[in-house]
Amino acid sequence: MTTTENGVDTAALFATIDAVDANREIAQFRFRATNTWISGTHNRSTIHGFAGAGQELTHTRPHTYDSDHPAILTGADHGPTGPEMLLHALAACLTGGIANIAAARGVTLTEVSSTVEGDIDLLGILGLDEGVRNGYSRIAISFRLRGDDPDALRDVVQRSSARSAVLDVLTNGVPVHVDVDAG
Amino acid sequence: MTTTENGVDTAALFATIDAVDANREIAQFRFRATNTWISGTHNRSTIHGFAGAGQELTHTRPHTYDSDHPAILTGADHGPTGPEMLLHALAACLTGGIANIAAARGVTLTEVSSTVEGDIDLLGILGLDEGVRNGYSRIAISFRLRGDDPDALRDVVQRSSARSAVLDVLTNGVPVHVDVDAG
Repeated sequence: MTTTENGVDTAALFATIDAVDANREIAQFRFRATNTWISGTHNRSTIHGFAGAGQELTHTRPHTYDSDHPAILTGADHGPTGPEMLLHALAACLTGGIANIAAARGVTLTEVSSTVEGDIDLLGILGLDEGVRNGYSRIAISFRLRGDDPDALRDVVQRSSARSAVLDVLTNGVPVHVDVDAG
Repeated sequence: MTTTENGVDTAALFATIDAVDANREIAQFRFRATNTWISGTHNRSTIHGFAGAGQELTHTRPHTYDSDHPAILTGADHGPTGPEMLLHALAACLTGGIANIAAARGVTLTEVSSTVEGDIDLLGILGLDEGVRNGYSRIAISFRLRGDDPDALRDVVQRSSARSAVLDVLTNGVPVHVDVDAG
């Protein structure tokens, strides 16, 4: 008998949930990114270390991500904008959850793909209309799943949506504190 | 006389704002990412095309981003989690705004760096405590700026925070629609 389903080690997944249930303080995580301005709207983040399970940990390697504005928004287009990275974050979080939940419930997946779009009216961030918000007015994500029967697949997406960290933050908001050391 | 300040082409920036002001429908943008599940919690997004200024546009090249769970969360750690990408998105958006606003106001920057951290209690997403939310309980970003006098630098960060698309979405939330084609 294998404990791997859809590439998920379900034995390890259940063991992790049991370990956290038995020792709840290890559930406290602090994720982290550092960012450095390069020039114009071009800047670069590094994601490597994080705290969790009572210890300081690292990913297997540091990941760097460039961000910029596209030419039409007067940048040099060295990478996507921050709002575009929100869309990736949402798709990644929901898709990881779909894989884990499907595996835990014995639902076979052969395909999970998605397109996520965010609508934004730049009159807000350009300061041209105080009645327009700065951020997205709406985000929509469309999934295509194949594998087990459609009802089982839809149920997995619903459960992932109900347990997604990114969907929760985007839908409900989170307090953000901005601190400045200006010399 | 140069029109470049901190690497920002301020003439182009002001011309863009004037062009949008004169033709407000071009301010409607739709950003986009596509995502494909690979195996387990490993998945990959592509960011390339977007709609804006009344046309379909692309970044100068497609950007792909892998996401996964770290080993301690039973993944293969092919990339950061979705919630970590939110932190990059926030730092990128605020830093791009700082650069533009500083340039527009003639404030010289020699350094902009930041660390952004998000606190999350995994009892929520693991379904172990219904009283714990799925997402971050708190995000904090600490900037270090050098260049002009501290008051001017602090003012630029405050103005960027007041006009950040990502900070708005994270602070205030946004409606998210999830759609499924299950076959």
